[in-house]
Formats: sequence, structure tokens, C-alpha cells
Amino acid sequence: MDVDDMLMIPGPVQLHSRISRAMSKQMIGHRGSKFSETMAYCVEGLKEMFGTKGDVYLITGSGTAGLEAAIASFSSVKRITCVDNGKFGDRLGRIASRYTKVDVVRFEWGKAIEIEDVEKSIAEGSEALAFVHNETSTAMLNPARELAKLAKKYDCITLMDAITSVGGDYVKMDEWGIDVAIVGSQKCLGIPPGLAAVAVSNERVWDFYNEKCPFYLDLSAYRKKAKDNQTPYTPAVSLFFALEEAVKMVREEGLENRIKRHRTLAKAVREWAKNAGLELFPQPNEISDYSNTVTAINLPEGVTDRELRGTLLREYGITISGGQEHLKGKIFRIGNMGNIGKREIVTTLAAIEDILSRFDACKPALYAAFEVLRSL
Amino acid sequence: MDVDDMLMIPGPVQLHSRISRAMSKQMIGHRGSKFSETMAYCVEGLKEMFGTKGDVYLITGSGTAGLEAAIASFSSVKRITCVDNGKFGDRLGRIASRYTKVDVVRFEWGKAIEIEDVEKSIAEGSEALAFVHNETSTAMLNPARELAKLAKKYDCITLMDAITSVGGDYVKMDEWGIDVAIVGSQKCLGIPPGLAAVAVSNERVWDFYNEKCPFYLDLSAYRKKAKDNQTPYTPAVSLFFALEEAVKMVREEGLENRIKRHRTLAKAVREWAKNAGLELFPQPNEISDYSNTVTAINLPEGVTDRELRGTLLREYGITISGGQEHLKGKIFRIGNMGNIGKREIVTTLAAIEDILSRFDACKPALYAAFEVLRSL
Repeated sequence: MDVDDMLMIPGPVQLHSRISRAMSKQMIGHRGSKFSETMAYCVEGLKEMFGTKGDVYLITGSGTAGLEAAIASFSSVKRITCVDNGKFGDRLGRIASRYTKVDVVRFEWGKAIEIEDVEKSIAEGSEALAFVHNETSTAMLNPARELAKLAKKYDCITLMDAITSVGGDYVKMDEWGIDVAIVGSQKCLGIPPGLAAVAVSNERVWDFYNEKCPFYLDLSAYRKKAKDNQTPYTPAVSLFFALEEAVKMVREEGLENRIKRHRTLAKAVREWAKNAGLELFPQPNEISDYSNTVTAINLPEGVTDRELRGTLLREYGITISGGQEHLKGKIFRIGNMGNIGKREIVTTLAAIEDILSRFDACKPALYAAFEVLRSL
Repeated sequence: MDVDDMLMIPGPVQLHSRISRAMSKQMIGHRGSKFSETMAYCVEGLKEMFGTKGDVYLITGSGTAGLEAAIASFSSVKRITCVDNGKFGDRLGRIASRYTKVDVVRFEWGKAIEIEDVEKSIAEGSEALAFVHNETSTAMLNPARELAKLAKKYDCITLMDAITSVGGDYVKMDEWGIDVAIVGSQKCLGIPPGLAAVAVSNERVWDFYNEKCPFYLDLSAYRKKAKDNQTPYTPAVSLFFALEEAVKMVREEGLENRIKRHRTLAKAVREWAKNAGLELFPQPNEISDYSNTVTAINLPEGVTDRELRGTLLREYGITISGGQEHLKGKIFRIGNMGNIGKREIVTTLAAIEDILSRFDACKPALYAAFEVLRSL
């Protein structure tokens, strides 16, 4: 195949040529006014996507760096409750345990968060609650609004991993009452990996600042420099150029339209799956939902991961994701983050249908996707 | 001016178009074999530049992230001696103090490291020594070989900030006996900021591993994944593409030639300065030297920083650096890192000569630079 392979994974995402071009601009000094203008524009755009009038700090690093900056910087808490119903929920607990006492509330991966279990943990003496908004490992949208409400009842601060929701789904920090949230660059923002943004919606959370947090991930240093639209350490300038272009693209499309696009694409994948006789992996309850940026489907019996994903890559040049950890070989995941559109979704579903039908593991169901996609 | 401004600072450096093009390639999944091939190639190239047969771990983050990863991961030491004769030496102490007991051996910025003072500190009970190889804030090359020898005498592990020397000057970890060294991407490697590499030359240093180091900066996680040429967290894939191209360029030029080029360019700047009646800022002693990747010159009396650097940027579109912290307004610094050549150096010196001569603060001295540069 001559053209690039197609990336349909939940990040990193395929790049629009506008992003690649912006990124390849000549280098500039990171202490000059040109860089500050770029950074100011990025921060403004991100505030809209986080749904906050608070601060946004940009960290050069992966999403995990952003998570740790948030957790470590605000770890002067007696105890933190971390909710784990997937790989990234699990990660929150692992990070937090390096800084303070942690209580992990575990749910089977793919199962919904039960608010009563979380409440029980918090009531036992937590001062912070950390959870994942959009859990990509299981393709579940966790109940951010309800968790934030619960946290407020107990005067807990809330830290939300919004790495794969910001820019692709509704995130309303101020309205929901989320104190700190984190996004990664290579997800719904549509740029390469290497940047994380941490949004801090209010001043109160600084009461829990821990000066013993890591030097590089100390948000107080980012806060100090943010006043001049600068970063404390040399930023990944090229990725800031890419982010600037991404914010432009979000504004051109309109955030509401962008979210509608993500939601419609994910719905098309789900409707296709159901009509193809496949099973969705996650089991949302009344307060949670299927993810709108990635879909996880049980691998049908009689088809191996290699037979599906291997053939898809070899014959069609399309990469989708498998399961992570103990879900390896049990599910496959299709991402629809960033600048993915109708064309990529239809192509991917058609190709999967071609392969699964060879195993009699799938009924023709593209019509179900078309029907949903017509609203775009 | 229509063409891009010229960056003559000690990082980030101006990009060769080959680097920009490599960086703007379409995204790939970071868990696939294509990425692993890219990473393996980068690591091989970096080992040569670090002068080690040991391991090299790639971290998405600025040089400071790399420094902290090295210091924190190996902080199970009773005490660490940090040598400070410039801004980046100072930073080592600030980072280390978050993890263990620190003794900072301070020298006035611009002054040379006196080995006896460092020995006194180590002898008082340090198990680790951290120092900066090429101190960009003062343009001084510190005595790496002598410091490593001293450390070995007391069975201390050595951590060397080689952020602005690797790829531009001699770094011989194995030969000198350096245990851990760090480089940043936006310096002599010639790519944009956003990657740091930590080289670990031997297994013994893992005896000092501290499992309470930050999650994101925990080198044991990088070590585990490095076996498969992977990273523990999503890497800045585009910057890996850039680094792959940079390694190709280093190999085409030849590392020895590349170092010779850097050394010759810096020498040309120094000879020009001396013959122009200007004073070099750093004061090396018999075991230290002027930096070969950046030159610091005292701002002549009667000329302000704005008059020199502001005019240079406005009229010529050339950016050079001023002094940092208390050296602001006292020195100016010219970088010659990465893919900078004879043309850029001559252009920069000529433009500075034009400006300084308006203040009668400089004699014509380009001839002195030409003479040095002829050997290239």
C-alpha cells in the first residue's frame, strides 16, 4: 500500500495535514513574545474545551505526566479515593500511592461505577476523589457530574482524568464542580502526543498544595510562569504550534459541532455492532454511558485478535486497538477521536465486516451506521 | 523580513528542513513494530554520542524531566553533592533536595570548579555526585573526567547533566566512569524540545534505585519497556521521527567531524571576541575550559542588552541570548549547537560587529573568525 496506514485507535490519532504543517514550522525561542502569543491562544481554546474560567497549565510530557502533576501537586490530603473500573482508573491509584494514603474503589473492568461504593470510601475520611471521565480501556463514560456532586457533599476536591474526553465530548468543569482535570494532546485535540494540559478551576484547591511534589511536575511553577504565558521549563515548541492550529480547527468547526460529530461517529459504530450481531463490551448503568470517543466490542467466538486486527492491518492498512492487560484477545476497540470523520468510520466498519464475515461472525450491518451518520 | 528569524541561542536550535520534514510524517501507533524500529535506531545513535555501551532511556519531557528522572530514580543515597557554578548547577541541587540530603558546593557563576572543594564535600559522607558538564548559563565546560575520577575514589555514583554537550562535544561515559548522564533534544542533537534521554552506563547504579521516585519519571519502568524498544507511557512520536533523522545526520557527518565543527565554531566566536576587544565571561582554570557549544561575552560598557539584542533582532532577524538571573544585562551568549555552520556564525558576528561599532564598543575582528573557520 502506498498511502499511510489509517489509525483508528484511541490515540495517538491520525493527523490532519494542517496539523503536520503547523508543527513543522521553523523553531522559535521559547522566551520570546511569539511563543507567548501561541501559548495564550492555546490556553484560551483549552479553557473553553475544559469548560472553565480557571487556569490551564501546559506540561511537556504524556498524559500520565499531566495526571501525576495534578495528583502530586494537590496531595496534601489525608486520604484520596481513586475509582478504578479500567486500566486508567487503576493508574490513578498507582500514581497517588506515591504521595498520600489511597483508598481504591474497584469495579470489574467494563462494569459501571456504583455511586454508593464511592460514597462509602469517601465517608471513611477522604479529602480528594480521583476518577477517569472517559475510560478508554473499556470504552466507558463514567458519571463525572454525579461523582463531583458526591465529592462536594463531603467537601472533597475532585481530580478528573479527562485525557480522552476534552475536545471530543462534554466537559464542564465549572458547571459540574470539578477542581482539576487533565487532557492529553494525542486524543480528541488531534495533535501528536507529547503535551498534557492541567486545568485548575478554582483557587481553593491550592490549600492542598504539596511542596514536596516532583520538581518538574510542580504545578506552582507552571502557575507562576503562566501569568506571562510562559512555561517553567523548555516546552515542546513544535507541539505548541500544532496545538495552536488544533484550537483554530476546533473554533472553525465549533466545539458543539465537534462534540456532536464525535458522539454521532461513536453511535454509528455501536449501532453497526449491535446490528452485526456483535456485543458491546462495557455495561453502563443509569448514570454512566458508552464512550463517545472509542468503542469496545467483544471479539466474537472463533476469531482471534490476530485474525481480526492482523488481517485488517495487512489487507486494509487500518490499525484498531485490542484489549489491554487481561482484556487482551477478548475485545477490540475502535477510536473516533480528533479529526476522524464519516469516511474513516465507514471504511473501518466495512473492512471489519469483510474480515469477520469470513468467519461467519458478523451480519451485514453497514446500513445501521449509514442511518446514524446521515445526521452529520 | 520574509525568511524565518535566525536562532543563535543555546537551544532550542534552528531546524534543518530534513528534521522538520521527518517530524511532520503521519502518526503511527506507538505500540507497533514501526515505532520500535525508530526507537531502536535512536537509542543506538545516542549510545555512541553518550560514549556508553549501557542503556539509554527516552523520556517525553524537557531536559529538566530527564534530570529529575535520573536524580530521583537513583536517590537512595545518604547524601548527594551537587556542584553549582551556574544556573543549571543550581537546578541540580533544587531537584535533588526533594529526594535526599544535599550538599551544594557553590562557586561564583562563571568561575571554575575547584576539585578540592568538591572533594571536601564528598569526603564528608556523600554517596552521589551531580554536576553539569557544559554549563550554558556561563558558557563553561566543567571537568567531567576529573570529577568522575574523584567520585570513584570515594565510591560515589556520578550523575552528569550533559544536556548541552552530547552530540556537540566529547562525552565518554564509559571511559570517564560516569554512571548516569542526560541530554535534551533541542540542543546539539538539532531537533525541537520535548525529548530527554537518560543514559545509564552500568548495572551497579541500580543499587541506589529509589522506588518512591515519581511514577512518570521512574527509570525502572523505562528500563523494563526498553527491552522491547518501547516506552512505558505514550511517547512524543513526532519527536522520535525527528530524532531518527537527527541520528542519520550525525552518522552522515560523522560524530568526530560534528564535534570538530562545534569546537571550531565556538573557537571562531571566542577569537573574534578577543580581537574585537570584548571580554569572555567565564574563567576556566587548568582542568576546565570554555564551552564548545555556546559562548558568553561581557556586554561592553555603554551598551545595554536591549541596544544589542533588540537591534540585532529588529534589524537582522537574529536572536541571541542574554544573561540569566543575576547575569541579566551583563552578558550576551551566542549558541552554536546542532546544525549551525560557518555561514550562521559569520552572519551573526558581522551583525553584532555592525551594532557594537555604532557605540564604539568593538573593533573590526571578523578576520580572526575567518582564520579559525578555514579549518572547517
